[in-house]
Amino acid sequence: MKKIILSIMALATVSAAYAQFGGRGQGNPTVPSVTENVTEDFKPALNNQSGHQYPMVNSQRMVRAQISAPNATSVGLDIDGKIYSMTKNENGVWTGTSAPQDEGFHYYQLNIDGASVPDPGSLYYYGASRWGSGIEVPSGDQDFWQVKNVPQGSMNEVYYWSTVTQAMRHCYIYFPNEYYTNTTKKFPVLYLMHGMGENEHGWAEQGHTAQIMDNLIAEKKAVPFIIVIDCLDARAAQPAQPAAAPQGGQRQGGQRQGGFGGFGGFGMGGAFQDVLIKDIIPMVEKNYRVIADTEHRAMAGLSMGGMTTHSVTLANPTTFAYVGMFSGGTFNTGELENNADFKKTNKALFMSCGGKENMGVMEAAENLKKIGINATGYISEGTAHEWHTWRRSLYQFVQLCFK
Amino acid sequence: MKKIILSIMALATVSAAYAQFGGRGQGNPTVPSVTENVTEDFKPALNNQSGHQYPMVNSQRMVRAQISAPNATSVGLDIDGKIYSMTKNENGVWTGTSAPQDEGFHYYQLNIDGASVPDPGSLYYYGASRWGSGIEVPSGDQDFWQVKNVPQGSMNEVYYWSTVTQAMRHCYIYFPNEYYTNTTKKFPVLYLMHGMGENEHGWAEQGHTAQIMDNLIAEKKAVPFIIVIDCLDARAAQPAQPAAAPQGGQRQGGQRQGGFGGFGGFGMGGAFQDVLIKDIIPMVEKNYRVIADTEHRAMAGLSMGGMTTHSVTLANPTTFAYVGMFSGGTFNTGELENNADFKKTNKALFMSCGGKENMGVMEAAENLKKIGINATGYISEGTAHEWHTWRRSLYQFVQLCFK
Repeated sequence: MKKIILSIMALATVSAAYAQFGGRGQGNPTVPSVTENVTEDFKPALNNQSGHQYPMVNSQRMVRAQISAPNATSVGLDIDGKIYSMTKNENGVWTGTSAPQDEGFHYYQLNIDGASVPDPGSLYYYGASRWGSGIEVPSGDQDFWQVKNVPQGSMNEVYYWSTVTQAMRHCYIYFPNEYYTNTTKKFPVLYLMHGMGENEHGWAEQGHTAQIMDNLIAEKKAVPFIIVIDCLDARAAQPAQPAAAPQGGQRQGGQRQGGFGGFGGFGMGGAFQDVLIKDIIPMVEKNYRVIADTEHRAMAGLSMGGMTTHSVTLANPTTFAYVGMFSGGTFNTGELENNADFKKTNKALFMSCGGKENMGVMEAAENLKKIGINATGYISEGTAHEWHTWRRSLYQFVQLCFK
Repeated sequence: MKKIILSIMALATVSAAYAQFGGRGQGNPTVPSVTENVTEDFKPALNNQSGHQYPMVNSQRMVRAQISAPNATSVGLDIDGKIYSMTKNENGVWTGTSAPQDEGFHYYQLNIDGASVPDPGSLYYYGASRWGSGIEVPSGDQDFWQVKNVPQGSMNEVYYWSTVTQAMRHCYIYFPNEYYTNTTKKFPVLYLMHGMGENEHGWAEQGHTAQIMDNLIAEKKAVPFIIVIDCLDARAAQPAQPAAAPQGGQRQGGQRQGGFGGFGGFGMGGAFQDVLIKDIIPMVEKNYRVIADTEHRAMAGLSMGGMTTHSVTLANPTTFAYVGMFSGGTFNTGELENNADFKKTNKALFMSCGGKENMGVMEAAENLKKIGINATGYISEGTAHEWHTWRRSLYQFVQLCFK
């Protein structure tokens, strides 16, 4: 019963966070642009398109957007579940400022006379079930995911045939620098999953997985290992795709087009579990220099990917030795105390969430330790159900793996 | 003199093609949406975002865009140098149809009450000096760049330190499938360059380099080799970047943000040549299993990248054995007839352009053959200064390499 209640709590938290984005802005309330007590030290966001001054962020973490739309009658900045009305100057340029945002990465968009569109000033990311704008709000600890002049691994795009979906699938595989320099060594593997409304691009792009690993390996805080970043969408090829589309899509198609937008049941176990166990792990262990045993296999995920990790590792208790749930709820003692296979196999169990979420991860870790699980809880201070929580969670989790 | 005239012709062609896009729509003429003699067999474009019916293309290769903008007074489809006026229905949804487009890939955008923005229905690409919308207009021969169930290589994102720019730089490196399966074999390398207003993402994404190679290798029409896709922008780190930005940018920064938008002189030789010779080639030959000699080194590029290939290979006549210029003009006999180093080194010289361009590639190839160069001319029928010309050119060129 407790297990069910915890699962429902996690589901509700995730759904609330998703709803907050407002499904591409429809239905988000319109509020005035912030004009009082604004510190005028705005700087271009870290991830603007080249040559673009806007969007900007100030030291209060307010976001200011700007766009030329001389004939528009209303333009809004749609971020964090609100649309901030922008105002037009004599040149037809609209400007608006949001309330302070949490540290880290946020999806957003502009609304021009009722049309929700990407901001031409930003780079584009897959999340909230669409490719669209994202903005980096500087954080005090962002150094850990920056590109530095340390030995570089690489983030590799790979297609493979899925026997389960009968189509080509697309994933990212991170190889540490040593994979290329030490050509006989075999490496452990982490299977790392995204959240609802996202796909495999999340961890590769806004997640900065390669930088987090390269930097930690250079500091000798993590051992070198491979990270496979796949997509929870395990539906068979869609008949609704255009007639001319190849099965599995072209390079930018497949899951790049797709992304898994809802709770169809197949995300949390089901068809995805089949793809993982029957297609992804065998493909990785066949094609690459991998230590193909339980002790050198880990699984983790954020939000719905954490819930999937929960269900897959419970259903396959001797497959993964390291398990991470980021903003995905918790394991509880009832699930594990009589699960001899899981307890014997597991080397580390990590559960995290943002400080603005309430997922009971610290209490759950304490309870799991009492039944002999090497459990760790982690709370990302000051962040909610969002990417900075997950970057920090990955940073913590990978330091526990394969040691 | 002839050389100078040819160079100016090539420059003018490239500039005209670039100007046609209209620098993000400013100044493009507005024309009525096409309504006469339209065949109503529109299908979603191959590269739409998941679940999006629009944009669509019909069998006449007309593009139809649609967007909900209930409060807008004018919405246009900005493609191929024209803005097609869209019309609004009773639900506030705007629809418009372009004249027939060439086969293949095209950049485009929407204009909403004067704001030029990406279409939320499309995927986004770097070109025309911005990240924005692109659309695939089906072509009769598009099979050659589709993802197929053949042994897959991978397209890898790599950062490296540049001694020339004193910053981290970002490139893509394609490894053929055999790089992973045959872990002692060494491979030849092609250095492949983008055009003006583009960056290294072009060949990796809209260029479909990995698919073109994987498919040709599977058919035994190309030998397996590595392709390094870098960026012509060799400017030092920009002081105008935000204060908090790491040198070289985060993973999505650097050249992803940037892209080289103009003729600064450093694209065609100069600083980029320094980066290529001093940083890129040594990095590749140090870090990967590469046959590090002239006979196993090729250079090619499209448009400005072709002109850069021209100047770099003339300035370094004993460095590359295979040379390709796609829509970048031609080599002429005056440059090569007394160039003993180039003639001795070169194994194949390939020059191509679209059938709607007039770059004299066939005549140039005939003339070069007369002075003992193994020259090949190729014309992409029915296409202009655009990506389908360059995909086809790559398909032809790589079959000549390292044989």
